Amino acid sequence: AGEEIVVIPGDGVGNEVVPAARSVLEAVGEFEFVEAEAGDAVKERTGEALPPETYDRVAAADATLFGAAGETAADVILPLREAVDSFVNVRPARAYPGVDALRPETDVVFLRENTEGVYAGHESRLSGDLSTLTRVVTTSASERLAEFACEFVADRGADGFHLAHKANVMRETDGRFRDAVVGVADERGVETEEVLMDAFATRVCLDPAAFDVVVCPNLAGDVLSDLAAGLVGGLGLLPSANVGPERGLFEPVHGTAPDIAGEGVANPAAAILSAAMLLEHLGYDGEGADVRAAVEAVLSDGPRTPDLGGDAGTDEVAEAVRSRL
Amino acid sequence: AGEEIVVIPGDGVGNEVVPAARSVLEAVGEFEFVEAEAGDAVKERTGEALPPETYDRVAAADATLFGAAGETAADVILPLREAVDSFVNVRPARAYPGVDALRPETDVVFLRENTEGVYAGHESRLSGDLSTLTRVVTTSASERLAEFACEFVADRGADGFHLAHKANVMRETDGRFRDAVVGVADERGVETEEVLMDAFATRVCLDPAAFDVVVCPNLAGDVLSDLAAGLVGGLGLLPSANVGPERGLFEPVHGTAPDIAGEGVANPAAAILSAAMLLEHLGYDGEGADVRAAVEAVLSDGPRTPDLGGDAGTDEVAEAVRSRL
Ligand SMILES: CC(C)[C@H](C(=O)O)[C@@H](O)C(=O)O
Ligand SMILES: CC(C)[C@H](C(=O)O)[C@@H](O)C(=O)O
Repeated sequence: AGEEIVVIPGDGVGNEVVPAARSVLEAVGEFEFVEAEAGDAVKERTGEALPPETYDRVAAADATLFGAAGETAADVILPLREAVDSFVNVRPARAYPGVDALRPETDVVFLRENTEGVYAGHESRLSGDLSTLTRVVTTSASERLAEFACEFVADRGADGFHLAHKANVMRETDGRFRDAVVGVADERGVETEEVLMDAFATRVCLDPAAFDVVVCPNLAGDVLSDLAAGLVGGLGLLPSANVGPERGLFEPVHGTAPDIAGEGVANPAAAILSAAMLLEHLGYDGEGADVRAAVEAVLSDGPRTPDLGGDAGTDEVAEAVRSRL
Repeated sequence: AGEEIVVIPGDGVGNEVVPAARSVLEAVGEFEFVEAEAGDAVKERTGEALPPETYDRVAAADATLFGAAGETAADVILPLREAVDSFVNVRPARAYPGVDALRPETDVVFLRENTEGVYAGHESRLSGDLSTLTRVVTTSASERLAEFACEFVADRGADGFHLAHKANVMRETDGRFRDAVVGVADERGVETEEVLMDAFATRVCLDPAAFDVVVCPNLAGDVLSDLAAGLVGGLGLLPSANVGPERGLFEPVHGTAPDIAGEGVANPAAAILSAAMLLEHLGYDGEGADVRAAVEAVLSDGPRTPDLGGDAGTDEVAEAVRSRL
């Protein structure tokens, strides 16, 4: 106990759902919370969306709970992922009983490469007409992801994972990614099945139950996990974990929701589920599972925020989750 | 009349649906058909998936109707798109009355940039660990696409189009794409609305009716149109047009369907709808509309292939389409 958790509400509904999630963390453990700033509001005030103190805090803490940032999202979240040396973004997309979903049978976890691809971002303006971006793929990052994936499927009791890529076009780069990931999995005796990322987009709509764990390059993971969010009813309930070798950064997948920010009615479920992932990352597996079960129970028969057709506020939902712990 | 149409069945069900589509073309006009080869089978026989004669024929013909290629798809279709100088891939994704769809209200046309992005494909193996791909974006190609998009929305009687990109990460390249496309649209008085490609993936599931025409960079258009295919029930009914300044290449979006190839039960609807796009490209707007209407009528109350729950064969469906012309 006593781990340091940095808490960054950020902008918009981040200021509502992060305190709610923090209250749940306080209910299950003894942590040292450190508040830090990032996002549009701090940029407005200081000129910097990501103050160096915030970066340093995140880079030193055991874990960080992040809310959302507005216009500055990329300026905040990409460096923070680097700060924790996060090589994988874990994005579970599942439907919850009692919550409207286009495909209620969806239960897919995306393991998204979190350091390279187009996000490595070497761009050049070569002429008035032409710009380029250098997409980067390394065997080392791909293998690191694959090792994580092998452990992940073992923990989940699964036999293997899917691998989504576009190696028929990006032969050298996604080919390297594919060969590295399949190589590690083969060594570990973990099954892999390849699927082209475009074909995946069709197939996951038609038959989401065919997929369980899906390993992807960075941008593919971004887009395909957001697609799966559409199948389970939107971004509102999706948590995520940016996992590094030691540290982690946990964030709901949703944004700042400017239309409802400040009204106290934002759904805290995704932030609380992110806190559950944070607990598991710190080794509190029992507590993490309890929090998840409490959220599920509240989603199925507890108070609901307006996005789910109810009229409860953020705090009332968080209180209901705490009372089920 | 008398235009030269190259016909490339390719592999698998291409050999069933392309003759069916050709029979419909023959029913509505006087064309000169030239058969050409491409794909796995010809590679097997000659060592080349795309024989130079085929490339030359396509580059010289008024239009080409292509079926599908197997493993060699990228080796065939990417050069053929170049052969017709195709700067835009038009991909309508709509649900048809009487056909099961996850989102029956979907009616979206993707206008996919068809020459650059990651498909420009300069890849390098820089070390044993590292490979790169140079993604290319030019203002000129983006503007050419935008001009097409402006005319397209005018023909469709729409006010504007959406623009899906990832300019928050690919700031220089997708930023250039965005600025060029929006610049042209502004000049023409055409409305544009931007949407990040990941957000699009969620939103099109939740509310497909919010989208009509969507302009995208190359890979985004590939993945997002396949996603929309999932919403309308699969790739089986989707046609596409690779449009160049003079020539065009028309192809069903589906592949070779090895599971059913050779049985004579492949659904020819996507190939016939591609033929309708071909007719319109040649200026036969009335004939194109007639063919589309005939396909729709057959889909709603005519004979059906097994993929749509019926027991008709390819030829029977094509015959039904011809009889409704
Ligand atoms: C804000 C943006 C840079 C980010 C990303 O593309 O990774 C977001 O879409 C996400 O998925 O967390
Ligand atoms: C076969 C492949 C190269 C092609 C592409 O990625 O463009 C296909 O997916 C398509 O969309 O027509």
